[in-house]
Amino acid sequence: MSDPILLRDDADGIATLILNSPGSLNALSDAMLAALKDAFTRLADDKDIRVVILKGAGKAFCAGHDLKEMQAGRAAPDKGRAYFADLFARCAKVMQMIPALPQPVIAEAHGIATAAGCQLVASCDMAVAAEGTRFGVNGVNIGLFCSTPMVALSRNVPRKVAFEMLTTGQFIDAARAAEVGLVNKVVPSQTLSAETRVLAEIVAAKLTAAVKIGKRAFYDQIEMTRAEAYDHAAAVMVENMLWRDTEEGISAFIEKRKPDWA
Amino acid sequence: MSDPILLRDDADGIATLILNSPGSLNALSDAMLAALKDAFTRLADDKDIRVVILKGAGKAFCAGHDLKEMQAGRAAPDKGRAYFADLFARCAKVMQMIPALPQPVIAEAHGIATAAGCQLVASCDMAVAAEGTRFGVNGVNIGLFCSTPMVALSRNVPRKVAFEMLTTGQFIDAARAAEVGLVNKVVPSQTLSAETRVLAEIVAAKLTAAVKIGKRAFYDQIEMTRAEAYDHAAAVMVENMLWRDTEEGISAFIEKRKPDWA
Amino acid sequence: MSDPILLRDDADGIATLILNSPGSLNALSDAMLAALKDAFTRLADDKDIRVVILKGAGKAFCAGHDLKEMQAGRAAPDKGRAYFADLFARCAKVMQMIPALPQPVIAEAHGIATAAGCQLVASCDMAVAAEGTRFGVNGVNIGLFCSTPMVALSRNVPRKVAFEMLTTGQFIDAARAAEVGLVNKVVPSQTLSAETRVLAEIVAAKLTAAVKIGKRAFYDQIEMTRAEAYDHAAAVMVENMLWRDTEEGISAFIEKRKPDWA
Repeated sequence: MSDPILLRDDADGIATLILNSPGSLNALSDAMLAALKDAFTRLADDKDIRVVILKGAGKAFCAGHDLKEMQAGRAAPDKGRAYFADLFARCAKVMQMIPALPQPVIAEAHGIATAAGCQLVASCDMAVAAEGTRFGVNGVNIGLFCSTPMVALSRNVPRKVAFEMLTTGQFIDAARAAEVGLVNKVVPSQTLSAETRVLAEIVAAKLTAAVKIGKRAFYDQIEMTRAEAYDHAAAVMVENMLWRDTEEGISAFIEKRKPDWA
Repeated sequence: MSDPILLRDDADGIATLILNSPGSLNALSDAMLAALKDAFTRLADDKDIRVVILKGAGKAFCAGHDLKEMQAGRAAPDKGRAYFADLFARCAKVMQMIPALPQPVIAEAHGIATAAGCQLVASCDMAVAAEGTRFGVNGVNIGLFCSTPMVALSRNVPRKVAFEMLTTGQFIDAARAAEVGLVNKVVPSQTLSAETRVLAEIVAAKLTAAVKIGKRAFYDQIEMTRAEAYDHAAAVMVENMLWRDTEEGISAFIEKRKPDWA
Repeated sequence: MSDPILLRDDADGIATLILNSPGSLNALSDAMLAALKDAFTRLADDKDIRVVILKGAGKAFCAGHDLKEMQAGRAAPDKGRAYFADLFARCAKVMQMIPALPQPVIAEAHGIATAAGCQLVASCDMAVAAEGTRFGVNGVNIGLFCSTPMVALSRNVPRKVAFEMLTTGQFIDAARAAEVGLVNKVVPSQTLSAETRVLAEIVAAKLTAAVKIGKRAFYDQIEMTRAEAYDHAAAVMVENMLWRDTEEGISAFIEKRKPDWA
């Protein structure tokens, strides 16, 4: 019996999802996408989990789609059209489940993050990368422009940077990824897991409900006009203010003591 | 009789507004918000003022909302709901008066700029920060996610940077703030006022009407599609070209002399 | 007989357009705009060209509009209103032809790129700059706010950076332009053409059809909501997958050989 393609390890309110197909560089096969969808669906309802870390087993974070599986899809009478349409829809849905999750999701990137693997990093709320990690949307090298990864990438980095990555197919290194906004920080390989965990623990220590409505409001307001965004965010803050734990949090701050949160 | 909560000092067409409640780290109390609203309303009609500088008295630029006042609002029969809704609406309105002002507004930041204080920096058209200034949207630390500050912040800095600041509640320093686009430049503390003034004087020396229509067009076009933005901006340029002072400005440039502006 | 105002030199699938009015610092006169429109129109249908480089002859990339010609427009009975409206509409159209071209367009910037010349750099898909190049949207210095250049600039760089450039009229240098996202890389003057060509050749070596649909999708999706963008991009990827050359490209990658592209 084979190992599960996606592992989950929970500790102290932090769930770590591990893409576990090192032989394929954690390719986003049909099975991997299904496992991620299932994992995200469960996490969405998991009240015990406050932060999610997403990482890859083996030498790479994720090398994107499973190309052999995709080529096999061409055997269908329609040459794969229906399969590809379904595949890209499923993949786009899984990517969009990340910003829709109530918990912040942190990518812990190492080795390479390419094509849909780079999209996965871009889709996470935050990302920590090991020195030496390489990021690329290099489908163009094999004739398949990274159109869906582009959606996430171009909402993370400046336009000319995204365009260059997409049309040259070249890698950027971790330091450049941090400069342009694709990752939050770069750390030595040896401390990658520890540093990612520190970030996760910082967020996990906050009032969970506040992080949850804040995350949702973040992605809601960012696609609105500024005036609409303010109306929306102000309504969110009113709700937030009326919670018992927020009243307690503010009182504790004023009284210079620790909050007594539920 | 107490000092006014907001000071205004005019010189050479530049108005300096000074948040003057150092004991509260210039908290945006009801009184401070009212004073800012009043000051911005007057500035909007003040033909003598060409640039506005916004700074804080004492050790900090601004530490955000007045938490004690907010907690007192809970005494109402509705637990504060109506007061909070009104407060966040008033605050969002004051913040949006800044981009709506005809004059460019420069934040002169020092010490700390947190929560709605960080929002104030983000809402200004430009910002100069003293070395050592710390910026944070740290409401999450006390259970109150900085949802309205997020609106301004996420329109200044890359998404992952904004998300990290909002969910970790951690400070970024002035150098980082400049890297990510939250401030324009960082200068030594001793020269903060002088450097901010130099920037203000550069802008104040331009043709006031051109700066005014340009600023309005900046915020109008940035929320449009590119095609709509071009239509709008082209119409603005036609009007601009037809002014006597613009004709004179261009002639003076061609003739390598100073323009004779009204 | 005078030299053409715009030169075109084709080699190995790369067309180099050279603004050729060095005496006017390659001003975007009526004649230059017409020549660019004509050149872009031809390139849009040119199946042999896979990448376009845009550069300037002489000391500068481009210094923006032809101010003397604009002033002459004031002689009309309407003081130039109709002419200016037509001029800015033509210019905006030419700028928007660049992202609409099927081929990626790389600005090769040197000397200065000011006002509509800076807009031209911002409008290109990518840009390489020589060390020492200065970029500015400095119309405000002569009373004419760079409203149309602002449209392109503010879609390349952070808001506060754009606002500062527009209202101070000050130059930024090439290193700063790279930091803020206005150019992709900065190289020594002596290697500018060679380095730009290397970038062009990298892109030209990709499957042309993939670059073409990718570029179009890039600009289409960037103005959509994320959900709409994903639907659009997924449809583009399905089409891309069904091409013979993409099937071959993926097979070649799996088989570790060079693709046999048409």
